[in-house]
Amino acid sequence: MGMVLDELGTPIVLAPMAGGPSTPELAAAVSDAGGLGFIAAGYLSAADLGDRIERTRALTSAPFGVNLFYPSAPSPTETFGAYVTDLAREFPVGEPRYDSDDWDAKLDLLTAAPVPVVSCTFGCPSAPEITRLHAAGSEVWVTVTSVAEAKYAVEAGADALIAQGSEAGGHRGTFADRPADDLTDPLGLLALVQLLTAAVHTPIVATGGITTGAGLAAALSAGAAAAQIGTAFLRCPEAGTAPLLRDAITLDTPTMLTRAFTGRRARGLRNLFMLEHPDAPAAYPEIHYATGPLRAAARTEGNADAVNLWAGQAHSLAPELPAGELVRQLSESAKDALKRALSIRIQGC
Amino acid sequence: MGMVLDELGTPIVLAPMAGGPSTPELAAAVSDAGGLGFIAAGYLSAADLGDRIERTRALTSAPFGVNLFYPSAPSPTETFGAYVTDLAREFPVGEPRYDSDDWDAKLDLLTAAPVPVVSCTFGCPSAPEITRLHAAGSEVWVTVTSVAEAKYAVEAGADALIAQGSEAGGHRGTFADRPADDLTDPLGLLALVQLLTAAVHTPIVATGGITTGAGLAAALSAGAAAAQIGTAFLRCPEAGTAPLLRDAITLDTPTMLTRAFTGRRARGLRNLFMLEHPDAPAAYPEIHYATGPLRAAARTEGNADAVNLWAGQAHSLAPELPAGELVRQLSESAKDALKRALSIRIQGC
Repeated sequence: MGMVLDELGTPIVLAPMAGGPSTPELAAAVSDAGGLGFIAAGYLSAADLGDRIERTRALTSAPFGVNLFYPSAPSPTETFGAYVTDLAREFPVGEPRYDSDDWDAKLDLLTAAPVPVVSCTFGCPSAPEITRLHAAGSEVWVTVTSVAEAKYAVEAGADALIAQGSEAGGHRGTFADRPADDLTDPLGLLALVQLLTAAVHTPIVATGGITTGAGLAAALSAGAAAAQIGTAFLRCPEAGTAPLLRDAITLDTPTMLTRAFTGRRARGLRNLFMLEHPDAPAAYPEIHYATGPLRAAARTEGNADAVNLWAGQAHSLAPELPAGELVRQLSESAKDALKRALSIRIQGC
Repeated sequence: MGMVLDELGTPIVLAPMAGGPSTPELAAAVSDAGGLGFIAAGYLSAADLGDRIERTRALTSAPFGVNLFYPSAPSPTETFGAYVTDLAREFPVGEPRYDSDDWDAKLDLLTAAPVPVVSCTFGCPSAPEITRLHAAGSEVWVTVTSVAEAKYAVEAGADALIAQGSEAGGHRGTFADRPADDLTDPLGLLALVQLLTAAVHTPIVATGGITTGAGLAAALSAGAAAAQIGTAFLRCPEAGTAPLLRDAITLDTPTMLTRAFTGRRARGLRNLFMLEHPDAPAAYPEIHYATGPLRAAARTEGNADAVNLWAGQAHSLAPELPAGELVRQLSESAKDALKRALSIRIQGC
């Protein structure tokens, strides 16, 4: 049996964008257009995930995937207590609680009613967990940001690696989110894909900052089997993107990495809240829950300076197009880009 | 008259690597193989630069370029005094002096005895300076790291833009090196090239982390007219790479950005000196001169923990090959990568 990647009409994977943008309609539109749609399970209960899977199945008969947040360990209160106290002086905050994002129940659900691809971020499932998903008929894709993570995932049984470059919007998929590691900045996508293809033989799905057909062509040329694209779909009518973010990404605003909103490093449009909390602690999901009320309030008020506006580095190029049409345009322009590149004289003597 | 880029046998530009690696032999070998060799004028007097240009001319009749450091403004002593005092407690240090890297004399030299391409880093020459170089028959290429810098350079009259992605080894070419800007991390190469091709029509030379033919193919697919490649040439016999660096880049050591060695942000292999001075000031070239003796001592002692080991993020893939053979292999494998990418089914329906 071939891999899902081999059967796609076009090598475009919809990046799972938890917390709003990812909808069954968006996933179905990308799958119907020949790409691979994705449901973002992050922040959902297993029951809600089940509903979304059913709604997607009702919309398309094409394959799609489900992305899970791999659970982190709980953080000791002393790592985040002072930060939450500090925030509470100025903003409405929630209880900084811990949960596993319903991991066990989601695995049960996906074993009982499997989908073609289950991808993970924030860590690598154990070999037994991967075996269980394989037995249910699913491929398991793991998000990696380094050669060491890639080797670990291959060893555990991953069928494909989602190579996340530094350019990517939203959360870093890095297995261990340690502030002490921040001095070493993340690998750019091109460097990462070159390093991974030299180190492992598992198919690679490149992600991070790919917003154009030329970007897709570059990912394929670098050695990826497909590109996972998120930010470029944020302005599609099928996306559940908050109006604030839908407008904000059209501007030239630079992005930055921050832990201020969720306690896990993520890339978003630079705003005051990020700038004022450069040393926010690594404590996910505790900080995610603590900042929930302040983010909700900012969204209601239309205040772009106190809400996470996750976006990749090339966000300003995201077009306003139906998702299927965007898949078609990205594909056409990727082919053109490859042909143009091949027309350059390339012959060292 | 066509541009130099249009006449190359293969779209490979040798990145100028000042301070040792760049030699006339390396530049000539790359130019002879159909690429564009480069002389790194940084840290040299105008007289020494003149010698290197003559030696290169004696070695090849093919075109080559010269790269200049655009002079920064002097930094007030209070920005760097405490850092130098601190270093002096532990290391031999030099006088933290200022100079323009002999800018005026180098411009005079290049106007009197022009080369086909003059490139700049650390800033954009003024429109009159560019006009003067044009009048001498040279193209002027400017290193940029953002859309704003690209528009500035195009307005000033640049003939091509060297798009430096975050992955690049050595100094960032950023016009203004401000620590306050560090929260916004640099654009990865793929994001940068996509943003630049959407914003300007000037030819782009992509640089940063390109160490393989697949990486070269990716840069071309993204829309670049050529790739500027440095780290991949560090282990060539023609390169003047210090033995310490020649060995160190074969390891998996991560890289990081630092101002600790020169007072200007640069990427190198992570070592103790960088980790111990994460907040080194922005004061180039003052810090470059202050750390000269300690870097020289470390090099003599073979101490990799107290010397700058500039390298791009994909450094471990640099092969040990004669430069001409490397140009040939990169070219062949780039063509293969483009053909392989074109063989993928790409057709959104």
